[in-house]
Amino acid sequence: MSGIVVQTIHRADAMVIDGLAHCGVATVHEAQDRTGLFASYLRPIYSGSRIAGSAVTISAPPGDNWMVHVAIEQLMPGDILVIAPRSPCEDGYFGDLLATSAMARGCRGLIIDAGIRDVRDLTEMGFPVWAKAVFAQGTIKASLGSVNVPVVCAGAQIKAGDVIVADDDGVCVVPRATAADVLAKAQAREANEGEKRSRLAAGELGLDMYKMREKLAEMGLQYV
Amino acid sequence: MSGIVVQTIHRADAMVIDGLAHCGVATVHEAQDRTGLFASYLRPIYSGSRIAGSAVTISAPPGDNWMVHVAIEQLMPGDILVIAPRSPCEDGYFGDLLATSAMARGCRGLIIDAGIRDVRDLTEMGFPVWAKAVFAQGTIKASLGSVNVPVVCAGAQIKAGDVIVADDDGVCVVPRATAADVLAKAQAREANEGEKRSRLAAGELGLDMYKMREKLAEMGLQYV
Amino acid sequence: MSGIVVQTIHRADAMVIDGLAHCGVATVHEAQDRTGLFASYLRPIYSGSRIAGSAVTISAPPGDNWMVHVAIEQLMPGDILVIAPRSPCEDGYFGDLLATSAMARGCRGLIIDAGIRDVRDLTEMGFPVWAKAVFAQGTIKASLGSVNVPVVCAGAQIKAGDVIVADDDGVCVVPRATAADVLAKAQAREANEGEKRSRLAAGELGLDMYKMREKLAEMGLQYV
Amino acid sequence: MSGIVVQTIHRADAMVIDGLAHCGVATVHEAQDRTGLFASYLRPIYSGSRIAGSAVTISAPPGDNWMVHVAIEQLMPGDILVIAPRSPCEDGYFGDLLATSAMARGCRGLIIDAGIRDVRDLTEMGFPVWAKAVFAQGTIKASLGSVNVPVVCAGAQIKAGDVIVADDDGVCVVPRATAADVLAKAQAREANEGEKRSRLAAGELGLDMYKMREKLAEMGLQYV
Amino acid sequence: MSGIVVQTIHRADAMVIDGLAHCGVATVHEAQDRTGLFASYLRPIYSGSRIAGSAVTISAPPGDNWMVHVAIEQLMPGDILVIAPRSPCEDGYFGDLLATSAMARGCRGLIIDAGIRDVRDLTEMGFPVWAKAVFAQGTIKASLGSVNVPVVCAGAQIKAGDVIVADDDGVCVVPRATAADVLAKAQAREANEGEKRSRLAAGELGLDMYKMREKLAEMGLQYV
Amino acid sequence: MSGIVVQTIHRADAMVIDGLAHCGVATVHEAQDRTGLFASYLRPIYSGSRIAGSAVTISAPPGDNWMVHVAIEQLMPGDILVIAPRSPCEDGYFGDLLATSAMARGCRGLIIDAGIRDVRDLTEMGFPVWAKAVFAQGTIKASLGSVNVPVVCAGAQIKAGDVIVADDDGVCVVPRATAADVLAKAQAREANEGEKRSRLAAGELGLDMYKMREKLAEMGLQYV
Repeated sequence: MSGIVVQTIHRADAMVIDGLAHCGVATVHEAQDRTGLFASYLRPIYSGSRIAGSAVTISAPPGDNWMVHVAIEQLMPGDILVIAPRSPCEDGYFGDLLATSAMARGCRGLIIDAGIRDVRDLTEMGFPVWAKAVFAQGTIKASLGSVNVPVVCAGAQIKAGDVIVADDDGVCVVPRATAADVLAKAQAREANEGEKRSRLAAGELGLDMYKMREKLAEMGLQYV
Repeated sequence: MSGIVVQTIHRADAMVIDGLAHCGVATVHEAQDRTGLFASYLRPIYSGSRIAGSAVTISAPPGDNWMVHVAIEQLMPGDILVIAPRSPCEDGYFGDLLATSAMARGCRGLIIDAGIRDVRDLTEMGFPVWAKAVFAQGTIKASLGSVNVPVVCAGAQIKAGDVIVADDDGVCVVPRATAADVLAKAQAREANEGEKRSRLAAGELGLDMYKMREKLAEMGLQYV
Repeated sequence: MSGIVVQTIHRADAMVIDGLAHCGVATVHEAQDRTGLFASYLRPIYSGSRIAGSAVTISAPPGDNWMVHVAIEQLMPGDILVIAPRSPCEDGYFGDLLATSAMARGCRGLIIDAGIRDVRDLTEMGFPVWAKAVFAQGTIKASLGSVNVPVVCAGAQIKAGDVIVADDDGVCVVPRATAADVLAKAQAREANEGEKRSRLAAGELGLDMYKMREKLAEMGLQYV
Repeated sequence: MSGIVVQTIHRADAMVIDGLAHCGVATVHEAQDRTGLFASYLRPIYSGSRIAGSAVTISAPPGDNWMVHVAIEQLMPGDILVIAPRSPCEDGYFGDLLATSAMARGCRGLIIDAGIRDVRDLTEMGFPVWAKAVFAQGTIKASLGSVNVPVVCAGAQIKAGDVIVADDDGVCVVPRATAADVLAKAQAREANEGEKRSRLAAGELGLDMYKMREKLAEMGLQYV
Repeated sequence: MSGIVVQTIHRADAMVIDGLAHCGVATVHEAQDRTGLFASYLRPIYSGSRIAGSAVTISAPPGDNWMVHVAIEQLMPGDILVIAPRSPCEDGYFGDLLATSAMARGCRGLIIDAGIRDVRDLTEMGFPVWAKAVFAQGTIKASLGSVNVPVVCAGAQIKAGDVIVADDDGVCVVPRATAADVLAKAQAREANEGEKRSRLAAGELGLDMYKMREKLAEMGLQYV
Repeated sequence: MSGIVVQTIHRADAMVIDGLAHCGVATVHEAQDRTGLFASYLRPIYSGSRIAGSAVTISAPPGDNWMVHVAIEQLMPGDILVIAPRSPCEDGYFGDLLATSAMARGCRGLIIDAGIRDVRDLTEMGFPVWAKAVFAQGTIKASLGSVNVPVVCAGAQIKAGDVIVADDDGVCVVPRATAADVLAKAQAREANEGEKRSRLAAGELGLDMYKMREKLAEMGLQYV
């Protein structure tokens, strides 16, 4: 099961990917029926990033970052690295040298269910990372893992080439096959939210706007 | 026990509330005999806010934000929403649309023992939130909770109309009935701290300023 | 075992200490064979600090900060306070008054396996802290602890006078006796990294630069 | 707020208390509208106990068990000690000597949002404890707390004299005033469950017994 | 994505399933290249069980156990229920009534990434459960989930009909397609371990038995 | 720093070690001034064991159990293995084969700040283990660690040859040099506790036995 590098992966359309980035995690997650969200313990190392890209996945042995070097060769501009250790680990798999190499290949960021280091450098370089921990503990290069195989990362299932969307709200995966459809739904939500936002800002209540009063009364809500 | 909305709540004096905000959580907490502090896992979504306001409380079913809409109608300018789920949950109960609506009613912020989303928007809007998690997972509108009933939120007991104080140090509740008295004590502490700060800044030691040396020697402290 | 203040401690050379600060935690940790790292749950209260200094250690009873006053008298310019409670605790041992006093003695920062408060003030004062929690809960002054005895803090062993290095990546301790040697190795790593960084930035792959391909093939890595 | 011992507390009827013990936590919790449950991190030190009793509450300073001695004097046969530290703590407040003393007063058990020690002795003595941790770390006797004041313990609000119910499922509190009513509802649930259990054991499906099929179809459930 | 019940699933051969149960989690996990393990926070509610069965999966809304009733109809003798909430939750989805119903259908046990209640009854009934928490908090029946769709449960990916193996060491999933092959490898490991066990019990060292001394010396291990 | 096996270690007197086992963790910990306790997250895999022995320490790479084989050769009858990974890890370093080998050398048990597997076998063999997790995840044999060097394990500092005491209350280390002295103090405590226990069992209050009433009144305790 280990020791495999899948070289050919299919990616979603670049316009679709960028559209998803613009919509952001919360909207995209809603648009695809509340699926694909990564666990909340993945946090951005700095705030304000909003990215989307195609997943290049790494199934890594705990505390061993050898496969990251292998994966970087598979990166195409616009990709996002997704590292899933095979057992819980918070060692620092990734730092400024790997980020330099990944950026040189056009990589847009990293999602990792483990630790990260060189946070200051990564911040200065503008290389966004969503990680479980910041931890300087180094890793070794002794065992094989795999690249571009399906992984579970922070509770989400990702296939290589799926679209990863990440911002201050966390990380979400959109299966490649449904990405265009999800984008359409996400954009519809956004359009719809604009009008709602204006009405709420003007003081209209959600109770009225969503016509909730009758249903609440039926359920037995009592005002005292 | 569920399904009740208390419409009339009593609030503390606005000057008292603003005075408590100015003193900040650490001083207020000391001034009321170290009571009322929320658990440390509630963290601000951005740093630098320092607010106080009257609690409008929500006892919510886990993963169900229906009562937030009900509570917003009960908000008066200067209030703070306090959301306590009935069982542990980190779903995202609250985002930019609800914040827009709450701000339109004069709400000063949100304290929530659960998750939050649209962090970037909330930050841009200047709507401060202290939350257990940032998590895009949406909620449903299926079950009743209650509004303005007493709740336990992150280990603290809050009654509607109590004063909530929140800043980078966390969140503290001051019972409405004692708010003026607590403010007086907090301000006395502040005045007192100013002089201490100057003396310490000038190099005087706490050991001397607080006359601790004799007591420490009595207890058996040995310098070697 | 408690109730002892060691007054004379030996410190590393000031140039060595400053050199270690410049190298940063990740590099120093690597340079000393991946030892001395504190647990990742210690986080800076604000980002961007990079300090090193001589450890003045405090073994404190849980929820009791009396010994901090005792320790401050032992501070010399360039020192860093290291507080290790004797059992797990997140109470706020330290705030702006103690920081004022410590800064007046030339203290460069605080490492604490417990809580901290007055975060906004500490940030404005530019006094960096790495802590387990932000928590306004106050402490008492009832029991003795010790100052400048060996402690375990967040999993790391520290002797008074050891060099503490702390930045956005966390905290690391370098034994005083080996500090100069570790600095030399750290600087060698840095020099070496500069060249690697340039090559990687230019697009060279780690697989080639580190000559990993043959070894990976030998291990059985398959490209499919 | 600290330093108060309330000597006179009102207790529920002994038959009601014993009836609630017999129903158990899950049924009692349901019978009172899913309120009063303690957090799940409180675990019994040994399995198989099922108790109920009147709460004698202790608001204790962290790491200080002095008030336990004070509270033991307030115990009446059939009471249960409830210890709530004022800030998070896992020190061992209670061991075999205190249990001996409490049992001599007719105490039925201990609920503690902190640590416990002498687990083997307590098990042999048959003194049941629900605790956050097993930890031998001792406590001090330096600060006052209060006895029989309202407390929040593991997220639940308890007033002295309320009925505590505890078994392998956890711990639940029933307000004294509603205890008889809750018992009646709990017993009704039990009676009702007996018949359901028989039908389910005989192979009838919940889908049919609860007539869920139509509602599920309406909601859009699809069998494929 | 929600609201789907897959009625026809394929199961592994009964002899294979029982063989895997006999081998146990640790051996099976090794036999399939260290894949398929559930997170360690899933713990058995009582020790000593060792089961295997075909997964009937439930993707459930948080705090909503409606789909469990739907899933029970899909159970065949020898199956194991696998419940994966769609966001983190520790509510008690399952108790003695559901267990009675599941046992009536021949269900061998439950794996749940959430809470469980009626632990004493389940233990007496001999219905084994591996759960994240014991928590009496009830659930609602308001939203649809799905049955027999692929799920991620405690970090593992499960398809309906895959073989679940569970014992005191935790829980592991074996894909249906490879179950016979994994069993063969697991049995080979067991046979092999018997001989090793005898030699080790007789005092032979692993260093010699596995011929490790030369490799260790090569790596630089020094005896001092 | 890694790759060292210290072959000659000094052990405490066998009678002292056995005496400490008899006193148990809580008493020993008190007798040495509340030092040496391991973190409470180390739990016994089965209850009822009470052991003491000389520490044979292992500083292990995360997820790599090679050094365990090396350490077993260093075991003498009456020793206890203490495994400290160099970064946080819950992989299963140890199972029934290693336990068979360790028992053949007279090893009394294992303390490990990581995971363990084959729990059922270990329980049947009567080989007691205190571990952070039960997790079947296997480890590799790729990197060197060290044996019988000083380690920090679950927050405690251990030198090879120190006395480890472990029972249902957790784990404690007694430095070899002070073991006889600590035993004397522990036995004095035990003798002293016997009389106290009898008086408390007879109904005498701790308030009276320890003469606390006056001090409490002085501190301001009010009975209302």
